[in-house]
Amino acid sequence: MVYTDIATRTYDHGWRLDPIVRSLLDTDFYKLLMLQLIWRLHRGTHATFALINRTRSVRLADVIDEGELRAQLDHARTLRLGKKELIWLAGNSFYGKARMFDPDFLAWLKDFQLPEYDLRVVDGQFELHFAGPWTHTTMWEIPALSIINELRARAGMAGKDRFALDILYARAKTRLWDKVERLRRLPDLVLSDFGTRRRHGFLWQRWCVEAVKEGLGDRFIGTSNVLLAMDSDLEAIGTNAHELPMVLAALAEGDAALAASPYRVLDEWRRTYDGNLLIALPDAFGTTAFLRGAPEWVADWTGFRPDSAPPIAGGEQILDWWCARGRDPREKLLIFSDGMDVESIEATYAHFRGRVRTSFGWGTNLTNDFRDCDPDGGASLAPISLVCKVVSADGRPAVKLSDNPAKATGEPKEIERYLRVFGNADRGVQPVLV
Amino acid sequence: MVYTDIATRTYDHGWRLDPIVRSLLDTDFYKLLMLQLIWRLHRGTHATFALINRTRSVRLADVIDEGELRAQLDHARTLRLGKKELIWLAGNSFYGKARMFDPDFLAWLKDFQLPEYDLRVVDGQFELHFAGPWTHTTMWEIPALSIINELRARAGMAGKDRFALDILYARAKTRLWDKVERLRRLPDLVLSDFGTRRRHGFLWQRWCVEAVKEGLGDRFIGTSNVLLAMDSDLEAIGTNAHELPMVLAALAEGDAALAASPYRVLDEWRRTYDGNLLIALPDAFGTTAFLRGAPEWVADWTGFRPDSAPPIAGGEQILDWWCARGRDPREKLLIFSDGMDVESIEATYAHFRGRVRTSFGWGTNLTNDFRDCDPDGGASLAPISLVCKVVSADGRPAVKLSDNPAKATGEPKEIERYLRVFGNADRGVQPVLV
Repeated sequence: MVYTDIATRTYDHGWRLDPIVRSLLDTDFYKLLMLQLIWRLHRGTHATFALINRTRSVRLADVIDEGELRAQLDHARTLRLGKKELIWLAGNSFYGKARMFDPDFLAWLKDFQLPEYDLRVVDGQFELHFAGPWTHTTMWEIPALSIINELRARAGMAGKDRFALDILYARAKTRLWDKVERLRRLPDLVLSDFGTRRRHGFLWQRWCVEAVKEGLGDRFIGTSNVLLAMDSDLEAIGTNAHELPMVLAALAEGDAALAASPYRVLDEWRRTYDGNLLIALPDAFGTTAFLRGAPEWVADWTGFRPDSAPPIAGGEQILDWWCARGRDPREKLLIFSDGMDVESIEATYAHFRGRVRTSFGWGTNLTNDFRDCDPDGGASLAPISLVCKVVSADGRPAVKLSDNPAKATGEPKEIERYLRVFGNADRGVQPVLV
Repeated sequence: MVYTDIATRTYDHGWRLDPIVRSLLDTDFYKLLMLQLIWRLHRGTHATFALINRTRSVRLADVIDEGELRAQLDHARTLRLGKKELIWLAGNSFYGKARMFDPDFLAWLKDFQLPEYDLRVVDGQFELHFAGPWTHTTMWEIPALSIINELRARAGMAGKDRFALDILYARAKTRLWDKVERLRRLPDLVLSDFGTRRRHGFLWQRWCVEAVKEGLGDRFIGTSNVLLAMDSDLEAIGTNAHELPMVLAALAEGDAALAASPYRVLDEWRRTYDGNLLIALPDAFGTTAFLRGAPEWVADWTGFRPDSAPPIAGGEQILDWWCARGRDPREKLLIFSDGMDVESIEATYAHFRGRVRTSFGWGTNLTNDFRDCDPDGGASLAPISLVCKVVSADGRPAVKLSDNPAKATGEPKEIERYLRVFGNADRGVQPVLV
């Protein structure tokens, strides 16, 4: 018996838009944690975010229709947090802590709407800017990236017949499961999904999260995606990102305040959160400079998330720093999240095992590894290096130096000034693949 | 919006049985061609078929529930040819020939029903016999095999969650498509699906056929499965099988008639069919004996289907035979169908290219290659070597010698007699994997 459900079919055909982002919780958890800090301490600050496509060879505006992009961004702007979502944020424990979010903050969040955007096409690329209060523009980072990445994936799949899609996903599933089987051999692995922004698509990310959960059991500790965490009863994972030191550095008056700004961020953070959330991100202006100037109390924090140095060298540098301050690294935590994949996870895990607790945030190579999966060939589904970064705060230019000069952002003159203040020690160019 | 189609779901849950064989056309085309010959020339002959599991290590009756097997066999006995099916058999051209089937034969076929079966469990194996008129028992071969193979696959998958099944099929699809991409590099390949009897399941065979059609285009010439040929507008492929010489040999009175029986089959066949259907199966009692004794007119036939000798050696033997009789092999056809897979297809294709036309019947390794695909490990989905062979005709024992003694069937004393009549030249044991 061939059974056609005419109602569903008619409904499906009537779609005006297949929305990519369908909830404001379809974002990274750290955005909410940072938002609460920004809302508490920097409510008056303006911040502009901009899309940066590091993979210049992919001319996004030639691939993605501008009208479709606007329709998706406009749809995201119609979203509000639902009652169920607000109740969950209020009632759920995060990192073992109840009432992570202040009732006043949640009351404010209830009416939150993504602010306006400014979109232009220049030389085959999208110039996409979000200008306005930091409390609002910050929330565009993840949906903007996941929308553009999924629109690109959809463009890469447009015109493929059902069969080619079937092979494509069979290969991608086989690929991922082969990775899971390798990771399964690491008994003390601690891993989470950090793949929201660069995902192939929402449904694919959900499948990947289910796969890793199924394959790794308790070793998979959760996902950075708040919506998936809520819907799948997983832990929401994340702490903070470069935008905090970048904005505070941009607002600093003079070189001395600039040099102190990374620690001011940590001080604000510890006044807002504690426990497992005390993870420092050391590389915004170079890890060596950060460690050299760090106050003693930073050594009491739970750990670090080295995010642009090579994982083993970057981790060793932090271990040395802890030891020099009399701290036992075995009680500390390193979170690795910079373009990790099975090989680098295995190597980093083996290198540090027994010497320091490690945790891995697996991003693009978890949720968007379609390399060589397309039966029609080509690279239209290979991931690109797309970021959405703060570029100015209250009209002052923002800078990120990073441990990897290939990941630096900001105006050349300002970068020069930052290098003068923070130094250039131990920074080395690594190719940025994802 | 989560949409649940309650009616479909309720219907699905109400199934008493998920039938494996749902049409009498879900069989190999050669069964119909042979059936017409049997119906015309041997209507009074009785023939008994029996299931033979060559993979003794797999105790089928421990894996498959006897009640489930009976339910599937009983269901197959309820099937009759539908009006659409009979009209298609009458109106379709096969091998470019219209009216392949006689109207009287089709009128008889209209009321065809699979006959009774005799099922017992002995020492962990099913003893399954079909006794009765040859015109009826012959039609059990394919449904009996595909039912048992699919029940075994279902047993191997029982208890697996949705996720493990997802990985299983992703891997099997990836595997098959990798094979298709290799075969695609052979520009003059001619290939067809011979995988009905050993398939993992009907839906999987259909997917495999679609995949090969998609990947190989015109180089995929069709399928042996009549139902799939009808539903997918493919050519139905097939000629004849060992049961014809086996029955005629069993019925032969004395050694001289026995020695002549393989050619009597060909004579009956050419009186019934012509053109592309003039393909001889030389190995029932050894290819060397067959070629040595063959009348001159056999060299005028379109070609041979060597089915148990190693493909290159077996093909060379036939080429020599054609050349010795002044025939140009480039006008002849060799069909290879014995446990072929990508490696052996590539090697055989390369060896004979330009010297003789070749065609490949791809069976078990097309429709049932799940080796190492099970995320839970184990071999419960690896194919086994299961056949359903004629064992007696009008109460006299039937024998198959084959070019490969591992594939011989029959009582030892009769095999001895056949070896005396046909000789044992050039027969050599090859492992029988599928």
